[in-house]
Amino acid sequence: MALKKKPVTGMRDILPDEMQVRNEVTRQIRETYERFGFTQIETPCVEHIENLTSRQGGDNEKLIFKILKRGEKLNLEGAESEADLVDSGLRYDLTVPLSRYYSNNKAALPSPFKALQMGNVWRADRPQKGRFRQFTQCDIDILGDATNMAEIELILATTTALGKICPGRAFTVRINDRRILRGMALHCGFAEEALDQVFITLDKMDKIGMDGVRAELLEDGHTAESVEQYVKLLSGVADDAAGVRALGDVLTDVLDPGVAAGLAEIMDTVTEVAETAFSLQFDPTLVRGMSYYTGTIFEVSMEGFGGSVAGGGRYDRMIGKFTGQDTPACGFSIGFERIITILMDEGGRTGGGSPKKAYLVEKNMDPVRFRQIVKQAMEERKAGTQVLLSQMNKNKKFQKEQLEKEGYTEFVEFYRESLKS
Amino acid sequence: MALKKKPVTGMRDILPDEMQVRNEVTRQIRETYERFGFTQIETPCVEHIENLTSRQGGDNEKLIFKILKRGEKLNLEGAESEADLVDSGLRYDLTVPLSRYYSNNKAALPSPFKALQMGNVWRADRPQKGRFRQFTQCDIDILGDATNMAEIELILATTTALGKICPGRAFTVRINDRRILRGMALHCGFAEEALDQVFITLDKMDKIGMDGVRAELLEDGHTAESVEQYVKLLSGVADDAAGVRALGDVLTDVLDPGVAAGLAEIMDTVTEVAETAFSLQFDPTLVRGMSYYTGTIFEVSMEGFGGSVAGGGRYDRMIGKFTGQDTPACGFSIGFERIITILMDEGGRTGGGSPKKAYLVEKNMDPVRFRQIVKQAMEERKAGTQVLLSQMNKNKKFQKEQLEKEGYTEFVEFYRESLKS
Repeated sequence: MALKKKPVTGMRDILPDEMQVRNEVTRQIRETYERFGFTQIETPCVEHIENLTSRQGGDNEKLIFKILKRGEKLNLEGAESEADLVDSGLRYDLTVPLSRYYSNNKAALPSPFKALQMGNVWRADRPQKGRFRQFTQCDIDILGDATNMAEIELILATTTALGKICPGRAFTVRINDRRILRGMALHCGFAEEALDQVFITLDKMDKIGMDGVRAELLEDGHTAESVEQYVKLLSGVADDAAGVRALGDVLTDVLDPGVAAGLAEIMDTVTEVAETAFSLQFDPTLVRGMSYYTGTIFEVSMEGFGGSVAGGGRYDRMIGKFTGQDTPACGFSIGFERIITILMDEGGRTGGGSPKKAYLVEKNMDPVRFRQIVKQAMEERKAGTQVLLSQMNKNKKFQKEQLEKEGYTEFVEFYRESLKS
Repeated sequence: MALKKKPVTGMRDILPDEMQVRNEVTRQIRETYERFGFTQIETPCVEHIENLTSRQGGDNEKLIFKILKRGEKLNLEGAESEADLVDSGLRYDLTVPLSRYYSNNKAALPSPFKALQMGNVWRADRPQKGRFRQFTQCDIDILGDATNMAEIELILATTTALGKICPGRAFTVRINDRRILRGMALHCGFAEEALDQVFITLDKMDKIGMDGVRAELLEDGHTAESVEQYVKLLSGVADDAAGVRALGDVLTDVLDPGVAAGLAEIMDTVTEVAETAFSLQFDPTLVRGMSYYTGTIFEVSMEGFGGSVAGGGRYDRMIGKFTGQDTPACGFSIGFERIITILMDEGGRTGGGSPKKAYLVEKNMDPVRFRQIVKQAMEERKAGTQVLLSQMNKNKKFQKEQLEKEGYTEFVEFYRESLKS
């Protein structure tokens, strides 16, 4: 059977120059998040199929890579459906496994628990440019804190990390609350049972604009009165904390006044204390797809890059699905691959500052002399220099050009004695 | 459907204290290997099923987690065997994917190529203590170098890394060559076609001893003359470079004299230049299971820990299965999980030296004061301190005890003004 050289469909090999950038970004993210008291953990890449298909993950549940049962011989003839063959799958995000992890290990973890996760997830999306079926996510979550402190810390930590990774690049954090989202629609007379559909339409705002949203809502049979009031309300809100407070006063019929006040307080605090400069905006049209969000939601977009580079929100009812008892939870995920794409488009970055030296050794070197060369390399390494010990190729010029691309700046060539004399 | 709290069978959640040790060991390994000029790369965790079942992986091929085909609706009724349902699986090692990677990306890589990989692999082994179905491997490989320089660099790099990770712990590197292994058996009169079986028996040496090996070989029907000569030869060889040279003189009828001389040269060089103190021994009974090895093989054992903590060897014919053209290749893999087990048994280790401080904030703090507290935390973080900002729990004493376990040494408590006055 012929072996295949290409990676499996939609996945990719990571080459050395990108790997260097990934390692450096990983280091910066981890260092920043640790400074905020987040603790790194890991869950298995393989998760129970029941947990992956519990309707927490929205459309992602259609994209699961499913794994054949192990153990007793697979009974193909008796299998009536996929469920008879499959008992696990590759995780499609880090939030569902984190909720399982917290449920499983709660007694051994501090409360509140501030978790940092960096790991691969898999989604069988249609392959397309810049989207891969295996990709790295980088999440922070605070479990067990029902107060605004969670949102404030998550936004401060994420924006501090982004500021360090992409210095000088302007970015915007948009924020909303699922309860305000619902409140605005209910206030305008949309029926409770129509809300999901209304938000699917609203979520297309960046593609079809307010006029498109209006047209689609009318097309779906909502009354012109509701639609016009909704459009007016959405368009009329100021995007700062004062706007949120004013909106709270409008929505008293449908919304606990603490919700708008809390969101405004988050915005005031973040604006006042953030280390990094960025724009923080209330966005009443922000929806975010995942069905598990219950409160605040946020998304970060970066100058010169379409789509979001980070997103998250509060999901107070997911852990309860494991434990039977709801636990407040809030998380923020950096789109690691998008950040890497931005940095690679900018020409990548060099790794650490230690000097890189290559020893090129002619073939068939005398053993005693060769040992001296290796010894010399070991001494330089011990002193902190990166030393590549390599055979000298026939085409030495090309070899050195290749190594220069890899960042080698110093070459030492060793020839057999016979040639020297 | 009830959600499951435990990880899937044989896999595990990694808790914060272990994660800290893993990160520190990862950092040390990466730093050491980079100093030797190894370049980190990554391949997808999912690999073509054809590549995983090409009889390169020995018994590991029986332990593959297989992934259901995606794309067109799965045709269960038309499926006659597993092969109709499956087109990929989780990688069981990092060597097969590396060979595919090199074949796919050769033009973009320096030659020789020194690769570093750190990643998870999956094997559906019977669950047992200390053995998991997902585990991390840490491999270095040199591709495109047919000379001894590859072995010397691999052994020096791996032993330097082990010396840094487990300082003060004695370890032994045992080395052999598949061609010497074959030569010794052929020299004693075993038939070519019996060799695989002979080596399966020899591989049990550490369990059944030389007497057990002798008995099993006789039982398998080999002549007493061959068996006695073999036992005598195996037992009589000195374990140093001189022993290897002497053995080379005995095996001239079956072995290229360059093989023993080369192995002795590797031993002489490593012994002379190694940074770390360890014992290097020629072991004519070392077999190593993988079928892909073609030359030198090596294994590291550590004081007070049964089994090997690292192993590797030369596999000059695997890349040819992808490209049609053989490429010299040699690799060394650190058993990352075993190292972590040793360190955790020793009580783990603390992470970096930066101070850890916890701010405990009483509930319902006045918003203006709360903002001052967050601001203060941000300033300390900017200056390099790790600051955990946390709600103060009702059971403050227990909370502080938990945080002390996490390494927090300083606590700052913030109360509402009303209580203070």
